[in-house]
Amino acid sequence: MLSSAVCSFMLMKLGVNSGFSARNCMWASPAAFRRQEFLIRCLGGYSDQGYQGKMQKVKSIGQPTSEADGEKILRAITPTLDPSKHKGQAGKIAVIGGCREYTGAPYFAAITALKIGADLSHVFCTKDAAPVIKSYSPEIIVHPILEESYSVRDEEKRSTAGKVLAEVDKWMERFDCLVVGPGLGRDPFLLDCVSEIMKHARQSNIPIVVDGDGLFLVTNCLDLVSGYPLAVLTPNVNEYKRLVQKVLSCEVNDEDAHGQVLSLAQRICGVTILRKGKHDLITDGETVRSISIYGSPRRCGGQGDILSGSVAVFTSWARQVVSASDWHTSISPRNPTMLGCIAASTLLRKAASLAFREKKRSTLTTDIIEYLGRSLEDICPVS
Amino acid sequence: MLSSAVCSFMLMKLGVNSGFSARNCMWASPAAFRRQEFLIRCLGGYSDQGYQGKMQKVKSIGQPTSEADGEKILRAITPTLDPSKHKGQAGKIAVIGGCREYTGAPYFAAITALKIGADLSHVFCTKDAAPVIKSYSPEIIVHPILEESYSVRDEEKRSTAGKVLAEVDKWMERFDCLVVGPGLGRDPFLLDCVSEIMKHARQSNIPIVVDGDGLFLVTNCLDLVSGYPLAVLTPNVNEYKRLVQKVLSCEVNDEDAHGQVLSLAQRICGVTILRKGKHDLITDGETVRSISIYGSPRRCGGQGDILSGSVAVFTSWARQVVSASDWHTSISPRNPTMLGCIAASTLLRKAASLAFREKKRSTLTTDIIEYLGRSLEDICPVS
Repeated sequence: MLSSAVCSFMLMKLGVNSGFSARNCMWASPAAFRRQEFLIRCLGGYSDQGYQGKMQKVKSIGQPTSEADGEKILRAITPTLDPSKHKGQAGKIAVIGGCREYTGAPYFAAITALKIGADLSHVFCTKDAAPVIKSYSPEIIVHPILEESYSVRDEEKRSTAGKVLAEVDKWMERFDCLVVGPGLGRDPFLLDCVSEIMKHARQSNIPIVVDGDGLFLVTNCLDLVSGYPLAVLTPNVNEYKRLVQKVLSCEVNDEDAHGQVLSLAQRICGVTILRKGKHDLITDGETVRSISIYGSPRRCGGQGDILSGSVAVFTSWARQVVSASDWHTSISPRNPTMLGCIAASTLLRKAASLAFREKKRSTLTTDIIEYLGRSLEDICPVS
Repeated sequence: MLSSAVCSFMLMKLGVNSGFSARNCMWASPAAFRRQEFLIRCLGGYSDQGYQGKMQKVKSIGQPTSEADGEKILRAITPTLDPSKHKGQAGKIAVIGGCREYTGAPYFAAITALKIGADLSHVFCTKDAAPVIKSYSPEIIVHPILEESYSVRDEEKRSTAGKVLAEVDKWMERFDCLVVGPGLGRDPFLLDCVSEIMKHARQSNIPIVVDGDGLFLVTNCLDLVSGYPLAVLTPNVNEYKRLVQKVLSCEVNDEDAHGQVLSLAQRICGVTILRKGKHDLITDGETVRSISIYGSPRRCGGQGDILSGSVAVFTSWARQVVSASDWHTSISPRNPTMLGCIAASTLLRKAASLAFREKKRSTLTTDIIEYLGRSLEDICPVS
């Protein structure tokens, strides 16, 4: 079973979208496995021995996690500002979230994307949430298209879901990254629609950053991200606990935080996980990096939304530059989602530390957002 | 009658939730009283003689009220900021208020909680009020669930009330404190729903700070808070007058402000009262403290909402630290609601004085809120 999971994961790493879900990989036939193994070899992938050895190496319990050079990576993936570029080339991000109860979270993620340097930031939310999110900022394009159960009669659900999906699909190909979850809520009908949106994004090879209620959805339906190397999960302490319980059938073990988060990423067949905490741990099932510089002791709600918006932008930038001929070969790791997470964690911590230095105990998420630009400039000056 | 009221109050102080309401305590049988007296002795409570003597002492008319060392208390109950903590551990506050007419008051209370250092701040309000309150700040989580009479047909009231209560109950256990009243309005159906919310909060031992229209509700239904030591009433001059008239059947007597507020707290069986005025008077029926430092001569509307939000945060912090082994034994009083009121009064006065120094006659509540962080830092520096 592990072998077929690993196989699917490697296929994905190599850019082969096999439609191989977690359930599939758990029950793949030996024949199917052999076919995939052959394909990987043809594509110049791993040898069985080498990969197993690598897995054993990184799985060793208690191994110290190496601190990523977040600032260096951030500088390496941030595009130069070039007057000849046109609108959209620095990134188009979409946040799927915002419902009757929650409007702040999708705003935080979307405005963060713009403040970091994306050109366009969209929010797809419910009709109730849209006017409020629009009122926070005229910079964000807000689509009032999602529906919650209370606003849809049972006999209309099928056609409504179709309309929602068609509306998002009109835009899908334009986006460089989706953020799924900030302020999404847990309405079953809404989550069903969002599941379909995620499937379409995946078919289009668009990176998906999953946070908040998106993690609730994914924890209950791992197939949505399993085996998709462009999926990033950004769990906080409680979300991580639920993921570990569901996927690894055990409790969180902080004495082997490194090994456990690595196992988790492997078991979800190669998604990237950014485990938020005192030190952020980032893994794609191959390597683990930690980010522990800077930071703030304030834990006001909304900081996770800054992070998910940042991961989206940096991941889309990293995808562009990693494949470019002039990519810094000294940069490690090379996986764009890993690079995106490392840069995002570094930037959020820097901005939070600057905001906290000024605002102390009264630091709020909006204060941190105001320091994103200054933090970027400190790390990666424009000129 | 006084004895049974005192008895119920003492039971509550000792942590015995007897379900003994004001009406019950007014009509308790001699046998019931003896059983409770016995229980108090078993719990190591007062002796008749000692307690009566204490009551006589604190009830003496004209006794000078001791000024609380508000800054010392604020420092003692404010938690240290620790990077290993996670979101929610510094407090989760909910404000029940906000209707078609009033939207500013619940916002002021909720944003104050965040500015002081709580991690999450919720508002439960009517559907009309929600988009407006949300638009004031993306930091606050606003639940549009309360209903006023005009929007509910008579035959639907029962089921609607059930839905409202179920919705709040989903969240109740997560909250460290409720603030009931800012911008609540006086719609009878809405107040009936809020009464039920208060009963559920009480069953869950969640502190309740009652202000504004919440005090109108409570004055007409004392059972809601009577005998509940985690209830805090924060009346202004008019609200205090109505309380005194209703509970003590007399007029406000400023010559014996100390004795009268003490009697009032005793007659409501041990709630904590913060009587706002030139000097704030704070009592739980046992001791009275005053806060008269700092302050501002501006009386713009909304300052009471800052106070109620502050009391909520400081009370929840005080509850945590008073029971901790390293609690400063030199701090007096020890009742968390008293400590919360003293810290909140001190902080608001400090922030108001700083805002007034800058803005003079044009000082508004939002200006004072902007000084909460600086005031906290002056009194209780982060490092």
